[in-house]
Amino acid sequence: MAGNSFGRILVLTTFGESHGAGIGGVLDGFPPGIIVDKAWINRQLKRRRTGSHTGSSARMEEDSVRFLSGLKDGQSTGAPIAFWVENQDVTDAAYPEGILRPSHADYTYWKKYGFFDHDGGGRASARESVARVVGGALAALLLKQEGIHILAFTRQIGPACWKGESSQAKVEAIEANRLCCPDQKLAEEMENYLQELRSTGDTTGAMVSCIVRGVPCGLGEPAYGKLQADLAQAMMGINAAKGFEYGSGMGSAARKGSELNDIWEPGFHTRNNHSGGIQGGISNGEDIYFNVAFKPVPSLQRAQPTLNEKGEVTQLPPAGKRHDCCVVPRVIPVVESMSALVIADHLLMKYAYQSFSYHKK
Amino acid sequence: MAGNSFGRILVLTTFGESHGAGIGGVLDGFPPGIIVDKAWINRQLKRRRTGSHTGSSARMEEDSVRFLSGLKDGQSTGAPIAFWVENQDVTDAAYPEGILRPSHADYTYWKKYGFFDHDGGGRASARESVARVVGGALAALLLKQEGIHILAFTRQIGPACWKGESSQAKVEAIEANRLCCPDQKLAEEMENYLQELRSTGDTTGAMVSCIVRGVPCGLGEPAYGKLQADLAQAMMGINAAKGFEYGSGMGSAARKGSELNDIWEPGFHTRNNHSGGIQGGISNGEDIYFNVAFKPVPSLQRAQPTLNEKGEVTQLPPAGKRHDCCVVPRVIPVVESMSALVIADHLLMKYAYQSFSYHKK
Amino acid sequence: MAGNSFGRILVLTTFGESHGAGIGGVLDGFPPGIIVDKAWINRQLKRRRTGSHTGSSARMEEDSVRFLSGLKDGQSTGAPIAFWVENQDVTDAAYPEGILRPSHADYTYWKKYGFFDHDGGGRASARESVARVVGGALAALLLKQEGIHILAFTRQIGPACWKGESSQAKVEAIEANRLCCPDQKLAEEMENYLQELRSTGDTTGAMVSCIVRGVPCGLGEPAYGKLQADLAQAMMGINAAKGFEYGSGMGSAARKGSELNDIWEPGFHTRNNHSGGIQGGISNGEDIYFNVAFKPVPSLQRAQPTLNEKGEVTQLPPAGKRHDCCVVPRVIPVVESMSALVIADHLLMKYAYQSFSYHKK
Amino acid sequence: MAGNSFGRILVLTTFGESHGAGIGGVLDGFPPGIIVDKAWINRQLKRRRTGSHTGSSARMEEDSVRFLSGLKDGQSTGAPIAFWVENQDVTDAAYPEGILRPSHADYTYWKKYGFFDHDGGGRASARESVARVVGGALAALLLKQEGIHILAFTRQIGPACWKGESSQAKVEAIEANRLCCPDQKLAEEMENYLQELRSTGDTTGAMVSCIVRGVPCGLGEPAYGKLQADLAQAMMGINAAKGFEYGSGMGSAARKGSELNDIWEPGFHTRNNHSGGIQGGISNGEDIYFNVAFKPVPSLQRAQPTLNEKGEVTQLPPAGKRHDCCVVPRVIPVVESMSALVIADHLLMKYAYQSFSYHKK
Repeated sequence: MAGNSFGRILVLTTFGESHGAGIGGVLDGFPPGIIVDKAWINRQLKRRRTGSHTGSSARMEEDSVRFLSGLKDGQSTGAPIAFWVENQDVTDAAYPEGILRPSHADYTYWKKYGFFDHDGGGRASARESVARVVGGALAALLLKQEGIHILAFTRQIGPACWKGESSQAKVEAIEANRLCCPDQKLAEEMENYLQELRSTGDTTGAMVSCIVRGVPCGLGEPAYGKLQADLAQAMMGINAAKGFEYGSGMGSAARKGSELNDIWEPGFHTRNNHSGGIQGGISNGEDIYFNVAFKPVPSLQRAQPTLNEKGEVTQLPPAGKRHDCCVVPRVIPVVESMSALVIADHLLMKYAYQSFSYHKK
Repeated sequence: MAGNSFGRILVLTTFGESHGAGIGGVLDGFPPGIIVDKAWINRQLKRRRTGSHTGSSARMEEDSVRFLSGLKDGQSTGAPIAFWVENQDVTDAAYPEGILRPSHADYTYWKKYGFFDHDGGGRASARESVARVVGGALAALLLKQEGIHILAFTRQIGPACWKGESSQAKVEAIEANRLCCPDQKLAEEMENYLQELRSTGDTTGAMVSCIVRGVPCGLGEPAYGKLQADLAQAMMGINAAKGFEYGSGMGSAARKGSELNDIWEPGFHTRNNHSGGIQGGISNGEDIYFNVAFKPVPSLQRAQPTLNEKGEVTQLPPAGKRHDCCVVPRVIPVVESMSALVIADHLLMKYAYQSFSYHKK
Repeated sequence: MAGNSFGRILVLTTFGESHGAGIGGVLDGFPPGIIVDKAWINRQLKRRRTGSHTGSSARMEEDSVRFLSGLKDGQSTGAPIAFWVENQDVTDAAYPEGILRPSHADYTYWKKYGFFDHDGGGRASARESVARVVGGALAALLLKQEGIHILAFTRQIGPACWKGESSQAKVEAIEANRLCCPDQKLAEEMENYLQELRSTGDTTGAMVSCIVRGVPCGLGEPAYGKLQADLAQAMMGINAAKGFEYGSGMGSAARKGSELNDIWEPGFHTRNNHSGGIQGGISNGEDIYFNVAFKPVPSLQRAQPTLNEKGEVTQLPPAGKRHDCCVVPRVIPVVESMSALVIADHLLMKYAYQSFSYHKK
Repeated sequence: MAGNSFGRILVLTTFGESHGAGIGGVLDGFPPGIIVDKAWINRQLKRRRTGSHTGSSARMEEDSVRFLSGLKDGQSTGAPIAFWVENQDVTDAAYPEGILRPSHADYTYWKKYGFFDHDGGGRASARESVARVVGGALAALLLKQEGIHILAFTRQIGPACWKGESSQAKVEAIEANRLCCPDQKLAEEMENYLQELRSTGDTTGAMVSCIVRGVPCGLGEPAYGKLQADLAQAMMGINAAKGFEYGSGMGSAARKGSELNDIWEPGFHTRNNHSGGIQGGISNGEDIYFNVAFKPVPSLQRAQPTLNEKGEVTQLPPAGKRHDCCVVPRVIPVVESMSALVIADHLLMKYAYQSFSYHKK
């Protein structure tokens, strides 16, 4: 494994396994003098945590972060910020020994790293996202100081899909239901659908939308560090993500230029925002918005045919209570966090150059 | 700009502007002893080049590559391979001075880099992809030696969409029509649609599919260098790309786990391949396939309202003949090339670790 | 701060401050299946730790490492290996508030990060090297499996200097005295010199030599990742290092080509080894050896004139008992560790390419 | 080879071989709006070029740079700046086939890359430094705009050594003799020594000093991107470099703290500058100075015993006229260039953070 760091100047490195001692990370390149609101970070962690709501895992983790370095008197010092979240509710009992779970990472980790890990997926577990949330929350705090705000929400769970534009999503509406859906009636439908799936031991996919407001013009490094490319990399690196689209998205394939072109209007704003706030790989000052599709959780509460380590046909028993039936809503703060890391990293890069231009004049 | 390099071990750095002297690149980290088939590379360049077919730009470029370093007697030496493709058909006449083109990079480049480039978009032009095609063709040659083959094709242009599975796409069918569509009748429909758009001065979006065959198990570096994340980064960095999906894709949001789980069958193959050949961020030995959606070309053959540099409302005249009406088919070798770079880079990384495991035993 | 990671494929990221909760690190890219001998790692830590010998700080730290991730059943799993060493003997009393210590990092950290850290130098403290020693010990264990061995020793302390060739240094001799000097009589002289300095409250510089045996031909990446360049970067990044030389070293300036050329002899070995085991930036299979010079510890046990935060002339009181009077012998395992990280990183890179060449044939 | 890029934000990638078509490079991350004085760049190239003076190679190269991208109207655009210098005086005749040259890269390149290059050392040739000089000259132009000036000069050739402090070196004195020595009488001695060596077919080592004036406080990224560490990496990556020291240097090993400590004086300047302008890895605003030792050129104008490809003892004939007898003075602009790249890269990084601090207040 050689990919546990993320970012160019602002770099998050994470470590820890699902059933090890805990999950941690190091955020390097964080500017000094940023006030670190620990309560808000723990709130983001709480959003990621298993809750009591329908469709959520029964694994109970306190998930309170301990900062190991890089802070003094509640502010960042410029030194790397390390943090650590202990695993508390760890048990091997939930995982059948020597059986390949379908659509999991068991097989590929086994073949790549040479041993079969029976304990909760180890590094491949979604529990790794704890570290993303803490690192991303730190980045989000920095962005807030610069007037940049990130909001992710649930657009779709199974057949229930919100058709609104992301720019219309309101924080209050999203926070008014457990599933983080901007429409309360739709949220109920979603809850019902999850209930129904739970009863049959099945799971479902979901779509999460994210909107970033207040991004100044100038973030993004062409040709290979385009802002949307780095956002795509960040999102597709989240467990279970299967697709990413921004602005006019996948639907662009069926559209005409005359429909999608963003016309410039006085004040250098665009009439529409099919561009999703990014042109030529660089933010243009409009809202940035994108969607991420997630596959259904592959752990089912029903038996599934599969192979064991020897290659013999066998059955995987039902997964038990320690698995979600949908990545939503727990993945929402993860999406926000990875977005924050990307935006903050590009903001630092922008400042590096901008300073020169300002010098010149 | 600080993002003109791509890759971790195998690194492509590109340079050059649309209306400068030419486009070039440097591929570093390429292993020695690989036979470099220049004819095949030029063939890939030719596929990217403006053709005479409907919907294609009238800019005529020979685009024959000159290698500046890194080769000897037709083989790679291990030294960085630099290459250069001259711009020949360059004219400023086609670009109106001081007018912001809608949904182009004019505004963001201007604001970020401090000057307004009137000549063909400079670095933001799709002509930069010439360097991607050469670099990617070199990577593809390396992959061929390892038994890995990449094939991209047109899935959709406007309303015409192929519904088949990517694994069914055949090289011969794709090469049998200019639009690289696996279905000849559909290709005709697409041609007609492009003809129709041309007549109204409009443009269209498109969807490209890509399949990678022969990838061994073990490519991909969790957690932040997952194979699908790096593929997404690569694809979303291509001009006009608006969405990326692999395996079950965006549609996963509406599906159930019981439908999408890939059941293991004797011989360690999966019954279906909704995973798209990647599990836990690591290739599992099955075919890798993904789709990339592109927006319509924003240069229309009709006038559009916009602003000039001073922020005054003005009109952008029709774009003239030097613009495509759809990124397809020219973008196809670009998709193949960026895929090849990602896969080859990960193959090198895999070998780095694998060697250790082998030593041990 | 944006430089807390070290390495290309095998990457060590460290964190923690002298007077914070502890010192830790993450080693990413470490191959799976390597047996991790914790006792040996703790032995390396012990060598770095304050001892009772003359010239050593009175700060007492247990320094026993706790591994947080990446190991299972005593072996590496391929996942990032995180580790943590708690600070136990922390006190602010030893550091005068608001006074710039001469030849320390107080001023530069203050100006760069915007606040004046009164507690032991924070991130700039030599205590950070705890993380280097753990990370480097892991790399050294990997190298041992490949038959590569690293040995550092004391060449010079003040006027006492060993004139032998590094290749003649014997482990037993080095381990026979506390100062790690290959000559016992010289070690005594050094001890006496340190005693004398201690009595006058002064400190001294030192020179450490390092030899790496068993390195295969082929490590090093021209043009900017030459093996000696990466070793130099590693050594000059150790606190208090002022110079680096390898092979014929600084003295080369006064020598003739006819004296220094390494003549090839049957079996492809060189008669001498003025090249220091590296030619063209790549290891040639001979022993690699180099020297690192360190300045005297700047904390004196006597008063020194200086400025306070306001820029007023003041006096820095004697430093107290918590400071060494020479970086040797505590820096010896740090030199070994940084060397191990560089060599292991290049070994992984070599394997990446070598695998291709082997495939070919 | 995977190390042909240099830098963190400002990245130079180079390519080309001694006897290939030419030498080139790409400088990415260069800020827009910097005036590019081509005459000055060509002057730096001319200083690197073979001259008619004693001790210099007879290979004649015009070495006039052609910029391929990234400039417009004499200014940088922010796009990657690619450049190309053609090889004109190329001949294979000078290199004996299949014979290992002592203390050259022949053996290691052969073993690492699998083929024996008979043509001038290929990528390992000092001719590669042409690209360093162009890239570094661009960086130096940027630094000049910020008031930072770099000056390298000859301190020692064989027995003739200047004992002055680098801070006393004057541009005029250095430019007053061909060997770039601050002392005219010493320069004569050096010329005589080179003449003498030439007559016996021998070569000599040399020491180059470099001083960087006007660097603001705050450049350098602890712990692993310390300014002196990056300078050391840069210098030790130059062909034939054997040692690097800064400030009090290698001699520090013999010195006392009471002698070397830099006492702070009113105005936050230090009484001496044994620290070499860097404390804790970060520039403190004083002059930065360092020395680099180079080994003698290994190509002798006399026969040397060696092996051929088959491992048989043979003789290498005298090297002919195409080799220098000392790396000085040609290496001087290379030292300046690599320094400029390091300083400029760190300046960009500093601005990235500084902008945040300024925002805060």
